[in-house]
Amino acid sequence: MAIPAANLYPPVNIVRLSHVEFVVRDLKASRAFYVDTLGLQVTFEDSQMITLRALEERGHHCLILRKGDEPAASHLSFKLFDEKDLYAAQAFFESRGLPVQWIDRPFQSRTLLTSDPHGTPLEFYAKMDRLPPIHQKYGLYKGVKPLRIDHFNFFMSNVDEAVAFYNELGFRTTEYTEDEVTGRLWAAWMHRKGGVHDIAFTNGRGPRLHHVAFWVPTPLNIIDLLDLMATTGYVSNIERGPGRHGLSNAFFLYVRDPDGHRVEFYCSDYQTVDPDLEPLKWSLKDPQRQTLWGAPAPRCWFEEGTPFQGVAIKEPDLKATPIVAP
Amino acid sequence: MAIPAANLYPPVNIVRLSHVEFVVRDLKASRAFYVDTLGLQVTFEDSQMITLRALEERGHHCLILRKGDEPAASHLSFKLFDEKDLYAAQAFFESRGLPVQWIDRPFQSRTLLTSDPHGTPLEFYAKMDRLPPIHQKYGLYKGVKPLRIDHFNFFMSNVDEAVAFYNELGFRTTEYTEDEVTGRLWAAWMHRKGGVHDIAFTNGRGPRLHHVAFWVPTPLNIIDLLDLMATTGYVSNIERGPGRHGLSNAFFLYVRDPDGHRVEFYCSDYQTVDPDLEPLKWSLKDPQRQTLWGAPAPRCWFEEGTPFQGVAIKEPDLKATPIVAP
Amino acid sequence: MAIPAANLYPPVNIVRLSHVEFVVRDLKASRAFYVDTLGLQVTFEDSQMITLRALEERGHHCLILRKGDEPAASHLSFKLFDEKDLYAAQAFFESRGLPVQWIDRPFQSRTLLTSDPHGTPLEFYAKMDRLPPIHQKYGLYKGVKPLRIDHFNFFMSNVDEAVAFYNELGFRTTEYTEDEVTGRLWAAWMHRKGGVHDIAFTNGRGPRLHHVAFWVPTPLNIIDLLDLMATTGYVSNIERGPGRHGLSNAFFLYVRDPDGHRVEFYCSDYQTVDPDLEPLKWSLKDPQRQTLWGAPAPRCWFEEGTPFQGVAIKEPDLKATPIVAP
Amino acid sequence: MAIPAANLYPPVNIVRLSHVEFVVRDLKASRAFYVDTLGLQVTFEDSQMITLRALEERGHHCLILRKGDEPAASHLSFKLFDEKDLYAAQAFFESRGLPVQWIDRPFQSRTLLTSDPHGTPLEFYAKMDRLPPIHQKYGLYKGVKPLRIDHFNFFMSNVDEAVAFYNELGFRTTEYTEDEVTGRLWAAWMHRKGGVHDIAFTNGRGPRLHHVAFWVPTPLNIIDLLDLMATTGYVSNIERGPGRHGLSNAFFLYVRDPDGHRVEFYCSDYQTVDPDLEPLKWSLKDPQRQTLWGAPAPRCWFEEGTPFQGVAIKEPDLKATPIVAP
Repeated sequence: MAIPAANLYPPVNIVRLSHVEFVVRDLKASRAFYVDTLGLQVTFEDSQMITLRALEERGHHCLILRKGDEPAASHLSFKLFDEKDLYAAQAFFESRGLPVQWIDRPFQSRTLLTSDPHGTPLEFYAKMDRLPPIHQKYGLYKGVKPLRIDHFNFFMSNVDEAVAFYNELGFRTTEYTEDEVTGRLWAAWMHRKGGVHDIAFTNGRGPRLHHVAFWVPTPLNIIDLLDLMATTGYVSNIERGPGRHGLSNAFFLYVRDPDGHRVEFYCSDYQTVDPDLEPLKWSLKDPQRQTLWGAPAPRCWFEEGTPFQGVAIKEPDLKATPIVAP
Repeated sequence: MAIPAANLYPPVNIVRLSHVEFVVRDLKASRAFYVDTLGLQVTFEDSQMITLRALEERGHHCLILRKGDEPAASHLSFKLFDEKDLYAAQAFFESRGLPVQWIDRPFQSRTLLTSDPHGTPLEFYAKMDRLPPIHQKYGLYKGVKPLRIDHFNFFMSNVDEAVAFYNELGFRTTEYTEDEVTGRLWAAWMHRKGGVHDIAFTNGRGPRLHHVAFWVPTPLNIIDLLDLMATTGYVSNIERGPGRHGLSNAFFLYVRDPDGHRVEFYCSDYQTVDPDLEPLKWSLKDPQRQTLWGAPAPRCWFEEGTPFQGVAIKEPDLKATPIVAP
Repeated sequence: MAIPAANLYPPVNIVRLSHVEFVVRDLKASRAFYVDTLGLQVTFEDSQMITLRALEERGHHCLILRKGDEPAASHLSFKLFDEKDLYAAQAFFESRGLPVQWIDRPFQSRTLLTSDPHGTPLEFYAKMDRLPPIHQKYGLYKGVKPLRIDHFNFFMSNVDEAVAFYNELGFRTTEYTEDEVTGRLWAAWMHRKGGVHDIAFTNGRGPRLHHVAFWVPTPLNIIDLLDLMATTGYVSNIERGPGRHGLSNAFFLYVRDPDGHRVEFYCSDYQTVDPDLEPLKWSLKDPQRQTLWGAPAPRCWFEEGTPFQGVAIKEPDLKATPIVAP
Repeated sequence: MAIPAANLYPPVNIVRLSHVEFVVRDLKASRAFYVDTLGLQVTFEDSQMITLRALEERGHHCLILRKGDEPAASHLSFKLFDEKDLYAAQAFFESRGLPVQWIDRPFQSRTLLTSDPHGTPLEFYAKMDRLPPIHQKYGLYKGVKPLRIDHFNFFMSNVDEAVAFYNELGFRTTEYTEDEVTGRLWAAWMHRKGGVHDIAFTNGRGPRLHHVAFWVPTPLNIIDLLDLMATTGYVSNIERGPGRHGLSNAFFLYVRDPDGHRVEFYCSDYQTVDPDLEPLKWSLKDPQRQTLWGAPAPRCWFEEGTPFQGVAIKEPDLKATPIVAP
């Protein structure tokens, strides 16, 4: 199936991905990981929840840690351009027969909760509490010096369908992997905010969250984090990398948090604002698409992910096998 | 005068700055500078003109060098979202009594030539020839490894008026410097593409081009360029830096080309896609706005610039004096 | 077996490792690799031989490529402090019943050819032709920007014996790996010049050269080389890394040349000039000794190496198995 | 006056510079600077004194802060190879009619206190308390990530005489600046440990300490420190840089501590262990010797320094004027 032509006049103006809420079993352990080790900044905390922002963000949070019994992701949240886009979103999802409801969320304006056709829980809002800038308070920078949330990547049982749906909603494909045997999509990267992606899909049991990624200043900050994690008790949380992705050209590292949620640190992809930007195609057989330097990803990276709370998981119908590390 | 509220529904959808044409006296000397030293890639050349692109760009060029007798900038070019925006631009500029004409430019679709109220020559187009990606041909990277054009900065004789005009056109202010004595704007940074700026204005004899900037991967590439220029005959072309700007938080270096055109290398500013992003205000008396580390800019940096071909230059009516290096 | 106490008043004053000669089958292919890709500088070449130096070296060469039929290393060369040390070296090797002969080598003064008790061919000289400095000719820097030769690592069939011998000769142990089951040494790092090592030994079929290493400015230069090799036809020459060694704390990458000779790029180990520097011990069972971040080395890294020309290879009597990548 | 030939068989085996003691007026303010901002590690503190080490050092300290009324440096300390060298040092200094005394210092073995012919207080010892390694405790790294002390630089009223004296003592000159009008030395860099220098002299009112320098991993750590100091109340403590020195080829930054003591951060000079290394000569008229990129040093950098406690200061007889920033 071909990548659909970009929908340049979409029904809803989505500015960017906003945040994800992770259910974690031990807030203290999660705080040690996300705050003390990675360097995210706490913007609110009580006995049930911690909200975090990265260093250049002025919105209240890019990550919510909520205490719970089973590791999961509650929902993926997106910021809309305007209040009017909330109603446009409502209309769009209703017209596809998808469930919508209006909810209250702390720190943000009226919020629409809905889901995509695969069941992925999505949340849309237009205004979140704004905080004073801290990007020039260099005394606060530590860990990997996370600057901003960059993207979500999720497993989808049918990537072709996911791409078609999100394309209609206005996400534009920048790169994709095709299974050349079947002509089906194995993976796709789609953006709103002008980088390689706000969201990406990988073929697999889904919907599940594969990872959330944070933008960091340079590859050296990722090396610093590796040194830090390797010598502060987190060596086994390092999953894959560091390396350069073929897809996106970004420098990357994947780690797992204390509940197994996967987090990527990411920098140096490219600008994608041109509406006539041509999507780049990669073959599923090319290991350089994963890591430009040739190393295949480990099997766990292709198989493990975070379930969405209360959402049924389907087997993918595309059974191709990616190249994995031996 | 206050910064006007962002015009979130502008009359024309400008995607980003596109390119500038420099008139240079010696194409060979300019080629040695821009290609052999900085590392831009030639996409066309003949006896009169060289066109260049940076490494991650797929548009045909971000810089045109045209042989001529007097150093000048011919025009500043911007990419529009759609052909329809060309006519919207025509209507916008005509409604303000500004001159418009349709022109043919090589490598790009129908082009509108006009100017802002100060006389700055502006060009708008929607489609430019697309070239195959080279961002992963690492054998081509050299010099400062320029990735893409980032912004234009120009001297304006009245920054308040410039900001008001470009704000109407849809540019959003991210940061600005105010002369606190008069309440007038000294400088402003305005964007379309989601970084700190596509265009910036500095108070001074204008309109003149202050500099064109290219995005580079990391501060180390700027250090590499300094080492290279310092030992290949270009030491006196280094004008200011390296340093961190207070304004924009970017790491920077300013150099002068063989004709005196100023070029900035720039990285690590921040994402500005939120429509509710609050502009940051700086005082003209604060030297950290220029260089976060405290060093004032040299006087030449505040005074010298590139004239636009055939455009009259006016004295600024704001006579404040910035802090300059002793 | 314990690490012997450092011999602080050795019989011979060895300044540092100097160079290795590799037999290669295709000088043109080797030149494309070492010169065009890695960035070493040619100091002499004819139809049979190319000599190379790194950017901060003023000695004539740190690597000799000699055309031949079978990939091999001819000899490892060391620079002595003084001509008198040549005779001291002669006496030392003769007293141990090892073969010595005086030979002529181009570009260097009178040269002693000998071998260690395992048969490793060693060469000593005091003066080599000196070349004008090029470390500030930044126009010459490319590839990985190699600055100087750093160390040799070789497989030895008995590391305990190798350490005892080289310790007597004045090399000081900085770090070592012990097989805790047998109490035998698995590997050791020994220096003369004030870094972690000039030479290192790894248990294995030997003597064979495991790798020669070059010092590079920062980890980013290693990342640049990975990007370059991955996109210029050398992706399969990338063998291991990038990573941080536990042992030595250095940042590293291992690649293979067109004949399979292994080359390491290395930076950021530590200063070891204190005569009372305590050797650091690592367990063979600890994968962090190899890569601080936890990734085991691939099996080929433990097994493959370059034979010394005409030297018989012995099986190691220590049969411990290191942790290898699955 | 020419640089004397290196004294390759010196009377005393000095391993390296060891530490300096600074008299500071406010230990708390100094601690905030050296520990919280620069990132040195406290190894001892009481109400009168703080001792510090850098991250890769295993000796007890490289810097002593002692409470006192007037900012000063008490003495410069050097580590000897062996106890025997202590007596050799005693003999050497006595033979030149210089004062010697045996003193007790905490954390180090028997110590010789003496001075050079200019009156600079020097201290020699062979053993200092050794501490467990912390170079792989990456949780401790912060600020500029100082790895080790690198060198002392001092003003001397007669650099020719200083070079002659320290050359006899075994320091080897790597680079020097000559006043071409008089043929006199303006400055010289001399080493023991295999880098560009352990000590350097600059013409000026002396003896005074110009600065103490610490080795840091990469230029990016220096940029991080600039960002940190600029936004934590230390912007006016930034004196010169960042830049690349012509002399030494190192990347540098100079800052002033709360008492005005000058500290340099320094990386990427080159290896100098070859006994036949040729000293490099620079002209006093060449601003690139100071900063390869062309920027002259500020006047204060040439004039201000730390007096040695109780040591008379003499005017230099060489009155040449270096190029200074306008």
